[in-house]
Amino acid sequence: MPYVNIQVTREGVTREQKARLIDGVTTLLAEVLGKDPNTTFVVIEEVALENWGVGGLPVEAYRARKRPAAT
Amino acid sequence: MPYVNIQVTREGVTREQKARLIDGVTTLLAEVLGKDPNTTFVVIEEVALENWGVGGLPVEAYRARKRPAAT
Amino acid sequence: MPYVNIQVTREGVTREQKARLIDGVTTLLAEVLGKDPNTTFVVIEEVALENWGVGGLPVEAYRARKRPAAT
Amino acid sequence: MPYVNIQVTREGVTREQKARLIDGVTTLLAEVLGKDPNTTFVVIEEVALENWGVGGLPVEAYRARKRPAAT
Amino acid sequence: MPYVNIQVTREGVTREQKARLIDGVTTLLAEVLGKDPNTTFVVIEEVALENWGVGGLPVEAYRARKRPAAT
Amino acid sequence: MPYVNIQVTREGVTREQKARLIDGVTTLLAEVLGKDPNTTFVVIEEVALENWGVGGLPVEAYRARKRPAAT
Repeated sequence: MPYVNIQVTREGVTREQKARLIDGVTTLLAEVLGKDPNTTFVVIEEVALENWGVGGLPVEAYRARKRPAAT
Repeated sequence: MPYVNIQVTREGVTREQKARLIDGVTTLLAEVLGKDPNTTFVVIEEVALENWGVGGLPVEAYRARKRPAAT
Repeated sequence: MPYVNIQVTREGVTREQKARLIDGVTTLLAEVLGKDPNTTFVVIEEVALENWGVGGLPVEAYRARKRPAAT
Repeated sequence: MPYVNIQVTREGVTREQKARLIDGVTTLLAEVLGKDPNTTFVVIEEVALENWGVGGLPVEAYRARKRPAAT
Repeated sequence: MPYVNIQVTREGVTREQKARLIDGVTTLLAEVLGKDPNTTFVVIEEVALENWGVGGLPVEAYRARKRPAAT
Repeated sequence: MPYVNIQVTREGVTREQKARLIDGVTTLLAEVLGKDPNTTFVVIEEVALENWGVGGLPVEAYRARKRPAAT
């Protein structure tokens, strides 16, 4: 009965992408650990860019400093 | 000084229901473990339906597949 | 399908107390929000005293400063 | 720069299985959202059986009630 | 490669304050543990007042009971 | 009444370092947001190296690949 929490920056993740994440993680846990999908929860949290920091900076400032590289 | 995080799907939980959850969990920790309510934090997170997966599917698709059963 | 995470200091919580916490939280979510117990997860995390801080101090130092009051 | 937290019951998950989970989740996020693996964190938490509840019961009691079905 | 999650009540935290939190936590981890800022993630979660409980009450009711003291 | 969760790899963090992290984060929240230290919780979680992944690999394999650089 796994619980998986996925945190990503809020940048237009679509419903279809979310469904693929849910399906992919659930399948992975079934294949690797034999977990029953019916008791596998996946929760996706989308975090505003200004609320996510890396390198001591909010994400946007961090990306700008490194020159725009998709992360 | 417990910290309790409650994650539920975002489906119209009212302020009054939230207050009951906060009160109920705090009382439970006081009764079972003797924890002081003044240092018991309860944080409720409401998760969009499309961000919650079970059975390898977003909640709505999962419920539809099983036929509408309240979950 | 709620997920509840309970964090408490590691101070000899017994199996029986854990079972009461699990039962109590699950019942509360069923009563207040109509959630199905079979899809309610409760995860208890016990945190070492030196890993929990309050008042800017590890718990033990904090309690000593306030004079021993159970928390 | 995703962060993924995987919580499973502590039941002998091997290093090799953990490595597969880490690899699988990271690859999934790269494929679905284009996330850079070098800034994708995966944290696995193994939870003692007595600390995980479902159906209002600790996992072992829950499984016993349903008759031993792998979960 | 630390991951830090900061939960505060949603009460008008500014972008500039968030940037200071991100910078401060990242610097702290570099100074105390020698962690590389480029692999230090800081995620800030702002929680609605009605979703945060303390003393068995939602924050606003708790503050009102104690007489308005900034918390 | 903030709650802060700090996750780091389990690599011999000392009690004194933990106390400095607790103090530093609490002071930061008081300075930046005016939060009362007495209602600021800091929880440190130490994660086994084999349970932390980055770059699609467990930490140790990741570091070995990049050549041993402290992270």
